[in-house]
Amino acid sequence: MHLSQLARRVLVGKPLHNERAGGTLLRNRAALPVFASDALSSVAYAPDEIVLTLALAGTAAIAVSPWVGVVVLVVLIVLITAYRQNVRAYPSGGADFEIASKNLGRPSGAMVGAALLVDYTLVVAVSMSAAAQYVASAVPWFVGQQVFVALAGIAVVGLLNLRGLQFMGRASTVPTYAFVAVVLLLIAAGLVQHLTGTLDRAPSADYQVLPAARMDAGLVGLAGAVLVLRAFSSGAVAVTGVETITNSVPYFRKPKALNAARTLGYLGALSTALLLGVLYLTRETRAVVVMNADEQLLIDGQRPGEGFFQVPILGQLAQTIAGENSVWFFVLVAVTVGVLFMAANTAFSGFPTLASRLASAALLPRQLQSRGDRFAFTNGIVLLSIVAALFTAIFDANVNSLIQLYVVGAFFAFTLTQAGMVRHWARVRRTRTSKVTTRQLAMRQSVAVVALIFCAAVFLVVLATKLTQGAWLTIVAIALLTLWMRVIGHHYASVDRELEVDPESPVRALPSRVHALIVVTSVRKPVVRALTYARASRPATLEAVLVDTDRARTEDVLRQWQRLEFPVPITVLASPYRDSIGPVISHVRSIRKKSPRDLVIVYLPEYVVGRGWERFLHNQAIRPLKARLHFERGVMIASVPWHLESVRELRLTENQG
Amino acid sequence: MHLSQLARRVLVGKPLHNERAGGTLLRNRAALPVFASDALSSVAYAPDEIVLTLALAGTAAIAVSPWVGVVVLVVLIVLITAYRQNVRAYPSGGADFEIASKNLGRPSGAMVGAALLVDYTLVVAVSMSAAAQYVASAVPWFVGQQVFVALAGIAVVGLLNLRGLQFMGRASTVPTYAFVAVVLLLIAAGLVQHLTGTLDRAPSADYQVLPAARMDAGLVGLAGAVLVLRAFSSGAVAVTGVETITNSVPYFRKPKALNAARTLGYLGALSTALLLGVLYLTRETRAVVVMNADEQLLIDGQRPGEGFFQVPILGQLAQTIAGENSVWFFVLVAVTVGVLFMAANTAFSGFPTLASRLASAALLPRQLQSRGDRFAFTNGIVLLSIVAALFTAIFDANVNSLIQLYVVGAFFAFTLTQAGMVRHWARVRRTRTSKVTTRQLAMRQSVAVVALIFCAAVFLVVLATKLTQGAWLTIVAIALLTLWMRVIGHHYASVDRELEVDPESPVRALPSRVHALIVVTSVRKPVVRALTYARASRPATLEAVLVDTDRARTEDVLRQWQRLEFPVPITVLASPYRDSIGPVISHVRSIRKKSPRDLVIVYLPEYVVGRGWERFLHNQAIRPLKARLHFERGVMIASVPWHLESVRELRLTENQG
Repeated sequence: MHLSQLARRVLVGKPLHNERAGGTLLRNRAALPVFASDALSSVAYAPDEIVLTLALAGTAAIAVSPWVGVVVLVVLIVLITAYRQNVRAYPSGGADFEIASKNLGRPSGAMVGAALLVDYTLVVAVSMSAAAQYVASAVPWFVGQQVFVALAGIAVVGLLNLRGLQFMGRASTVPTYAFVAVVLLLIAAGLVQHLTGTLDRAPSADYQVLPAARMDAGLVGLAGAVLVLRAFSSGAVAVTGVETITNSVPYFRKPKALNAARTLGYLGALSTALLLGVLYLTRETRAVVVMNADEQLLIDGQRPGEGFFQVPILGQLAQTIAGENSVWFFVLVAVTVGVLFMAANTAFSGFPTLASRLASAALLPRQLQSRGDRFAFTNGIVLLSIVAALFTAIFDANVNSLIQLYVVGAFFAFTLTQAGMVRHWARVRRTRTSKVTTRQLAMRQSVAVVALIFCAAVFLVVLATKLTQGAWLTIVAIALLTLWMRVIGHHYASVDRELEVDPESPVRALPSRVHALIVVTSVRKPVVRALTYARASRPATLEAVLVDTDRARTEDVLRQWQRLEFPVPITVLASPYRDSIGPVISHVRSIRKKSPRDLVIVYLPEYVVGRGWERFLHNQAIRPLKARLHFERGVMIASVPWHLESVRELRLTENQG
Repeated sequence: MHLSQLARRVLVGKPLHNERAGGTLLRNRAALPVFASDALSSVAYAPDEIVLTLALAGTAAIAVSPWVGVVVLVVLIVLITAYRQNVRAYPSGGADFEIASKNLGRPSGAMVGAALLVDYTLVVAVSMSAAAQYVASAVPWFVGQQVFVALAGIAVVGLLNLRGLQFMGRASTVPTYAFVAVVLLLIAAGLVQHLTGTLDRAPSADYQVLPAARMDAGLVGLAGAVLVLRAFSSGAVAVTGVETITNSVPYFRKPKALNAARTLGYLGALSTALLLGVLYLTRETRAVVVMNADEQLLIDGQRPGEGFFQVPILGQLAQTIAGENSVWFFVLVAVTVGVLFMAANTAFSGFPTLASRLASAALLPRQLQSRGDRFAFTNGIVLLSIVAALFTAIFDANVNSLIQLYVVGAFFAFTLTQAGMVRHWARVRRTRTSKVTTRQLAMRQSVAVVALIFCAAVFLVVLATKLTQGAWLTIVAIALLTLWMRVIGHHYASVDRELEVDPESPVRALPSRVHALIVVTSVRKPVVRALTYARASRPATLEAVLVDTDRARTEDVLRQWQRLEFPVPITVLASPYRDSIGPVISHVRSIRKKSPRDLVIVYLPEYVVGRGWERFLHNQAIRPLKARLHFERGVMIASVPWHLESVRELRLTENQG
């Protein structure tokens, strides 16, 4: 086994047999943690986003946060209701992309596809950046090293995904369920403390928050309203993740659509409980986080020092409710990092699935379409890891910055999808193709319309409040990606038309005769082998050609050719400019000109070497010739490999190993 | 014409016809400036090296410099006398490499070759760094930008050389002759001023030079002696460059050897006049340069400031004799930059010639052997540019540092060559193969012995005084290069033995039968064409194979195969691990196992695209299959190109353009 193969085996694992494909389908209790972890894990950062945005208007403004949370949850519930319908209407897993393509046309489908690809990338970047934040709050040694922690996380998730989904499915139930259990427990304990009057103030409750410029009056007037909208649009990140389940229907056990719809229901219930609980306790403990600690905080009247670090809201609650260095705090950090890890993993299952689907629809390069030997879409996983790592590095693993990019893309996709669904139901009602009653259909369409209105409204709010804060980058990325998909789609489509075969196609006509040429540079075994191979195929004419780039060598070759009495004529091609390729091309063209319906086969002896560095020493002249010959019409290139000693040694080692 | 071709045409020029090869031979009056510019140009930096080394012992020590110069000149004259014999004994232009190989054996030849390659590289780096120094003394704007100036210079020389030697030959007579004329004039004027008592003191004469640690007693004791030896070994750089002429004999007109020997004579006379004149005037004007101005200089009792810049000795002389901002100073700088440019150019003609010769001797990769379409050795020129630029950048275009590396390599080569010549004359005397008298032979051998002693002595001095100052790097580079050459030589030799054909060689046996396989991935025109090409060659068996990586696609292909009624059976190869390559390889092996004397031809339809980005969209699956098939025995790979629309468009544009 090659070293590279060995490394691959250790990191990625043995190939999996097709028969085990069924084994990678997931029961609901495994599917929930895998596909809902994205949505659930947002409890680890969505409250922080709401609080730090409101904190721009001072501490008092933070009291509004549970109400912002309620609005976010209303959106979430509307969206989940709509998506439960969507998965059952389009159970193939193409979901948003398929809905938009079928109902709004291919360009809209491409746009939704592009938006979701960008979003999956940002889910990875956001989740691992948030995880790095939690790691740093538990282990102060990592403060300032968040970018490296996040990048390491991306690398680990990427590698695990290359091993295939099954492993992740089993392992992933633990952290997600643990996270939900720990946070619910924390909320319960907090509420009990609150009711018994023993709930402490958060460690950050005594920080003095300086309002931003022109915000010192608190949440009043237009500026205040805009700020609340901004907080809402940041908190809306809690809604995203829903689409992951709808894109992953094929991974569910049968009845797939029903199971996926159920999982969506559980997700809605859990999200509501978690988000509301956390936001309520945040207000009661007066926990605070701000966007920029250096400028916005005074601690005991002083600016925070060099190594100051803001523990995320969820961590602060654990510190307040269970004690600053209590075991529960560390347990909470551990399960939060775990669920964020699973969220990134969700994206790693969603992105390649979607990319493969887009590739099948000829909107992305074909190599993204196929599964590797462990059922994972290898190319898609590698691509996602690289792009997510880039985003993370560029934005310095700053969750707040990354979320600005993320939310806008998600709601763009939601809006287009719901617009598609409104059309879908209208068409179904018109054509009466469904078995359900007219009343039910009307109901479903209303749900879709309401969801569309909500999504569009949120999208506009998000766009308006975040465009200058980074969302423009998402818009540009989606636009470029859509454009690229259209170019690819156009290319594949035109190639498709070009290559279609019909029974009368002239491409089926056999060439009249075969002319064989052997390009000779020296009289050595590889050339002799090419000669025997060419003779074995019995062409109509067979001719050796020698380009005269060096008088002395030409004469030497001719001498040996005679001495060895090959039964093949050799033609010397003049090359006054010492070009070894041009004369061969001209010669081939002259043959083709004389008999355009004939086939010319050019035999090229090629050295095959066993060691990398040897490659540099051989075939240097053959490669450009081959490339040029590929552009000639009616020419086939036959490479006759000659294995040098080192290949045989390699083969021996392999057989022994 | 392609854009890349167009760019090449503009930068490098039209291809030159073989008939014009004679035109690139040079008359003596053109050969002198081309090949002697290396040696002559050292007047631009050798005096500086002597002065700045002696200055380590304070100003008084500099007075010794003309005497150091005299010793350098003695070495030069001995060497030139010996080399005049060498070129006549070995007129083929292999010179040092050939002499060492033939008389001391192939390993020594490789060592000399390696040393000379390293030296040519350093000539380029030293010359362009020195040129940058002169540019900065005339145009203060460039002070601190010397590295960029030097790198730009290397780029320009490299490009001009890609255009071929002839152009350089004509253009190059001007700067070299101008340099010699201007410096001789300068020396004459200086001597006249000196005799009439009107010679000024140099602008740097009043600088206070602080001696280095433990050197404050001046040139006394062992330390003083060592310093003089160091100064000598730096000044010995003036001797280098001689070897360039002897390596370039083939470029001279007939009688080549005689003309080359004559040119060597002129070179010796000119070098003597220039070097002695400059060193004498340096002493009389008390011009000073030091290694490290910040540490060694006091100007009016102060450390030199930030922008302080040391004008090279030759520039200082022009400033002193003709006036600080006189036209003559700028003329001198211009001609000096010109001659340094020519020196780099000399290396650019020497390096590729030598590399080509080493490649012919199978000590370097073959692609260094061949000439481009303008008679220049394209690959060698590109390689030299890159490595010289690396040296320049690493050593910050510091002439003093680079010279430490340069001199040791040159004298290493000189010593080995002269050792070879001593053996040569001994053999000639023994075998009496020469027409000349015994007396003359004895004379020639003595010259060789004396030169050997001189070279060896200088080499030891250089090695001892410079090893820790960078010369170790040269030694390591030469050793590695030699080692690499031996590996390459060994490889080519073993390949040579392996590939030799004799009339009874079993490789001449024809394969019994031909089995053709067509790898099918879809039923499209490219596959149909591959099918017709395969059928046209009438193999014994013909079979299409389809790897079943995706059930649905497989069935689709089989359906179409039947519909189009191809007269070729199709075999479906199972691939439970979704590997598209392995099953093909196994199938090929099973055919080979059944009939080991037969030939298997694998037909691969390949897409040829006209635009670079399209390449990413096609053939992704074919490439790895092709690579793997090359390692199979008894298999020939036939690629059947299919030109997509974009190729036809490309062809149309080309025909119109």
